[in-house]
Amino acid sequence: MSELRYNIVTREWVIIATERAKRPKDFLKAAKEKKILPEYKQDCPFCPGNESKTPGETLRLGDEKNWKVRSVYNLFGALSPKDKPQRENNGIYLSMHGFGNHEVIIEHPCHNTMIPLMSNEEVEDIIRAYKNRYVSMQDDEGIEAIIIFKNHGPSAGTSLEHPHSQLVATPIVPPQIRSRVSAAMGYFDSTGYCVFCKTLEEELKAKSRIVFETDKFVSFMPYASNVPFMTWIFPRRHVPSFSGISDGEIKDLAINLKSTLQKLYFGLDNPDFNYTIRSMPVKEGGTEYLHWYLSIIPRLTQPAGFELGSGMFINTALPEESAEFLRQVKSH
Amino acid sequence: MSELRYNIVTREWVIIATERAKRPKDFLKAAKEKKILPEYKQDCPFCPGNESKTPGETLRLGDEKNWKVRSVYNLFGALSPKDKPQRENNGIYLSMHGFGNHEVIIEHPCHNTMIPLMSNEEVEDIIRAYKNRYVSMQDDEGIEAIIIFKNHGPSAGTSLEHPHSQLVATPIVPPQIRSRVSAAMGYFDSTGYCVFCKTLEEELKAKSRIVFETDKFVSFMPYASNVPFMTWIFPRRHVPSFSGISDGEIKDLAINLKSTLQKLYFGLDNPDFNYTIRSMPVKEGGTEYLHWYLSIIPRLTQPAGFELGSGMFINTALPEESAEFLRQVKSH
Repeated sequence: MSELRYNIVTREWVIIATERAKRPKDFLKAAKEKKILPEYKQDCPFCPGNESKTPGETLRLGDEKNWKVRSVYNLFGALSPKDKPQRENNGIYLSMHGFGNHEVIIEHPCHNTMIPLMSNEEVEDIIRAYKNRYVSMQDDEGIEAIIIFKNHGPSAGTSLEHPHSQLVATPIVPPQIRSRVSAAMGYFDSTGYCVFCKTLEEELKAKSRIVFETDKFVSFMPYASNVPFMTWIFPRRHVPSFSGISDGEIKDLAINLKSTLQKLYFGLDNPDFNYTIRSMPVKEGGTEYLHWYLSIIPRLTQPAGFELGSGMFINTALPEESAEFLRQVKSH
Repeated sequence: MSELRYNIVTREWVIIATERAKRPKDFLKAAKEKKILPEYKQDCPFCPGNESKTPGETLRLGDEKNWKVRSVYNLFGALSPKDKPQRENNGIYLSMHGFGNHEVIIEHPCHNTMIPLMSNEEVEDIIRAYKNRYVSMQDDEGIEAIIIFKNHGPSAGTSLEHPHSQLVATPIVPPQIRSRVSAAMGYFDSTGYCVFCKTLEEELKAKSRIVFETDKFVSFMPYASNVPFMTWIFPRRHVPSFSGISDGEIKDLAINLKSTLQKLYFGLDNPDFNYTIRSMPVKEGGTEYLHWYLSIIPRLTQPAGFELGSGMFINTALPEESAEFLRQVKSH
C-alpha cells in the first residue's frame, strides 16, 4: 500500500508510492552520460579573459586579474531595473512592465569545476556573493522578492556549462512564496511555533532523514519530499531573511552545502539538480514565523500529467531510505 | 523589455520574456528525434491478445474480441481502493493511507497511433471512456477529486509507448485544484461572473489567441500562458464538472481535441505533451463559478531553479504569436 504524507511547511500532500518504489541505486540509471569538460574554454563568456563579453559587472571578489567570483548584470534578463513596476489593464486582464533584476553569479574562474570539487573557501566566496547581491537589492523600490537559484545540468534547465548561479528580483511576491508565508503564519497562529524550527527539532529527534550536520546547519530530507532525494538545508538559528546570514554561518554553510552536494555527486554520479534559497518577501515582517533555508532538488524524475493537473506529487523514493543511502556516502 | 501578465484563472503572474523570445519555428529544434513504432508489439501489455497481462478490467468499449477502448485497474497504482482514507499522526506530521483509485485507459488497440491520427469516432470513444470512469467513481466515499491526464513522450513523463491515458482519484482535494476553486470563488464574489465564461468571452472578442473553434468548444492560448504553446479547450456551455459533458459535447470535443492536437503534431513535429481535464472537487458545489476545461501542456522547455524556487514561470514564447502559428497549420 502506498502512503500519503502531509508537508507542514508547504501544506501539500504527497503520495509516497512504496508499491512502485525504487531503491536509491536505481536512480543512478537515470543519470545521463556525462561530458568531460575542459578547464578553460576560449568561447565561454564566463571564462577568464572574456570579461568584456559580460558587461555590467556588479561584483568582483578576489583581485582585478585573479578574480574568484564575479557577478554580472544579465543583458537579456527576464526582468530589468531600467523599467518601472507599473501595472496596466488589458481588457479584463492585467499586465505589468518587466521591472526587476536578473544577475548571473559566476562561481569560479574554472570552466569545469563545481561546488563538490571546490575548497571550502571557494564555496564561502560564492555564498558571500549571494549575500552581497541580495542585500544590495532588497531595499530597492518596487522589489518584493529575491530568488537565488542554481541550475546544474540539462535536466535542471541549464544551457551554460560554466559553474554559475542566478538571482532574480521580482516586482511581486511570487505565488509559492506567498503560500509558504501564509502556511507558516497559520502554523504560528495555531501552535505558537515557527514551523521551520519545529521541523528541525523533530528531524533531529527522528534522525532517520538527516543527511549531514554541521555546527550551524542541518541538511535533511523532508518527511513529505515531493521528489526523490530532495534535501533541505536549514540554519539552526531562527533567521527570517537570507540577508541575515552571519559570517560564521557563511563559513559553516559552505561546509554543509559542499558536503551535501558531494554526497549527491559521489552517490548518484553527478546528477542534474537545482537549488534555491527560500527567503522571506523582502519588504515584509513575519520575523516570528519565517525562517530562510536552502532547498536542493535533484532532477531524477520528470513531473507528468498528474503533477501538472493537480499540483500534487507522486514520489517513488522513501525519504528515510534515500537519506540513509546519502549518509553512507563519504563526503571528502 | 519583458512583460509580466496576470492569469485571472490561476492568479499567477508569468514573465513573458520578449527580449529572449523564440519564434514558433525555434521550438521545432527542441523536438527530439522520433522513433518509428510498430503497429503491434508482442510484449506490449496494452496490445490486443495480451489482455490477460492487465487484469481488473473496468470498461471495454466495442465488442469482446474487437475492443476499441479498455480501461484497467493499475496493479501498481499510486493509490488503491482497497485501503481506507484514514489519517494518522506521526510526531508533528500527518500521514494517510494510500486510498484512492488509479486506472489506465488504453485508447486504441493499435500500438502506434495517437489522437491526431485517429478517426473522430475513435476519439469520441476515448472521451466516452473518460466520462464513464469519472462518473463511476465520483460518488465513492472518501474520493474528493478525480484527475484525468495523458502523458505523451518521454519529456512528458511516459514510459509506455502504447497510446493511453490515466485517471487518479484522490482522497484529498489537491492544492492546485483548491487554489483554483478559491480564485474562481473570489472572482465570482467580486464581479458576479464565472471567470471561465468571462475569459472565453474576452478571448472570442480578442481573437488573437484563438487556435480552433467548434460548435461547442473553443481552443485558445491563455493570455498569461506559463509555458510555450500551452492551450486550453473550454466548453462554451457553463458546466462545473466534467461529468456533466453531454453526448453532443463529446462528439464536438473529439473534433476540437483532435484538430488542436493535429496542429501541434504537424506544426511542431509531434512534440511531447501532457493534457489534463480540470474539473471541480467531486463532492463540492460551486456551480455558479466553476467550469471544467481541458489543458494541453506541450513539454518544449524545462522548468529550472527560478520556477522551482518561486512557482512563477518565465515563458519565452508570445501566446499571440504561437496561436497565429498554429492557426496556419492545417488540421486534417
